Amino acid sequence: MTRTAPPIELAQALPVLVVVEAGLAAPRSVVEVVRAALAGGARAIQLRNKGDSARELRTAGESLIPLVRQAGGLFFVNDRLDVALALEADGLHVGPDDLPVAAVREAAPEGFLIGRSADVPLVALQAVADGADYIGCGTVFSTETKQDAGAVIGVEGLRRVVEAVSVPVVGIGGITVARAREVAEAGAAGAAVVSAVMSASDPAAAVRTMLQSFAPA
Amino acid sequence: MTRTAPPIELAQALPVLVVVEAGLAAPRSVVEVVRAALAGGARAIQLRNKGDSARELRTAGESLIPLVRQAGGLFFVNDRLDVALALEADGLHVGPDDLPVAAVREAAPEGFLIGRSADVPLVALQAVADGADYIGCGTVFSTETKQDAGAVIGVEGLRRVVEAVSVPVVGIGGITVARAREVAEAGAAGAAVVSAVMSASDPAAAVRTMLQSFAPA
Repeated sequence: MTRTAPPIELAQALPVLVVVEAGLAAPRSVVEVVRAALAGGARAIQLRNKGDSARELRTAGESLIPLVRQAGGLFFVNDRLDVALALEADGLHVGPDDLPVAAVREAAPEGFLIGRSADVPLVALQAVADGADYIGCGTVFSTETKQDAGAVIGVEGLRRVVEAVSVPVVGIGGITVARAREVAEAGAAGAAVVSAVMSASDPAAAVRTMLQSFAPA
Repeated sequence: MTRTAPPIELAQALPVLVVVEAGLAAPRSVVEVVRAALAGGARAIQLRNKGDSARELRTAGESLIPLVRQAGGLFFVNDRLDVALALEADGLHVGPDDLPVAAVREAAPEGFLIGRSADVPLVALQAVADGADYIGCGTVFSTETKQDAGAVIGVEGLRRVVEAVSVPVVGIGGITVARAREVAEAGAAGAAVVSAVMSASDPAAAVRTMLQSFAPA
């Protein structure tokens, strides 16, 4: 897993966090879509593939990590710390049904990055106190990608979380290329996107356009 | 997680390996059924609860581990190494869809026990070469507990695996109290049971009777 570029700082990686769902990439392979997203400038990739077994996740991760490393990006796994550790991923994203941040922090090696979902300041603050490095905040806009995504909080809800915590916050949930600017204006460090990139006819262009919303003015 | 009895040797723990499925224990709690199984003499408990989230598994494990520790038994988790590590379980059981034994061995602390499912000698031998401490071998008899359990190998298939490897082998799949003796006669170190204990009206008695099949003559 050689890095040909130095690893990027977390905050610099987050403007477009691409969440990988193989089903949404079809008929293209996830490798093809992730390669395009990286070419477009994405530097944070999170392997989710809900429903995959540990072995399937590991296989998918093995095919993606070299691409992410080569681009100098960060590779995250959703939920499964064991798969993340086996893959030597840069970090893990956990939600309310997953292991608590404190338990992940205790089991993970030093420097391992942890993201935590939170839709209200109290949950975000607790996650940060427990050791989270960033917050995934949403559902910002209504979405059909994640059935169990919970209540829509809007950009105002996102802003409340951004203002509450000291770590980077990425918005998630229904964020399209067209609406990325609203997320940036709420103070988020970035947008976590699933279908906006996975299902895009031109994933590189989708990432490139979204990045412009987060570019310093 | 204080142990009030010294931990048991793996081979001594395996005669009845109770696989925990909360759904089969209902309406009783798994705590109630596991407590009874331990009272009956079970010394190996594996938390499976298929479909549970990591957080649910961890919560279930936290309620069971003190009981297992107090009895001097061994506590295993199915599939999720991360949950096993967070719980400081004694070991993990993995199947063909889970992380490879070698990856688990690399990520696990020293002395951590690893079981691997195998229905033919070649798979069992590879698992042992990769670091497995015991083999779960089946499906011995046809079962309705596990839909994806694969082909029925019978006691003859079990015997072939027992004779191929140097580590303890427990039979799994459709093993009832009445058929435990056949499993013992095939040379297995024990029987892994799900419904035979989880759904038993008297789990302690079920374990006690099965243990007699594995008692030295």
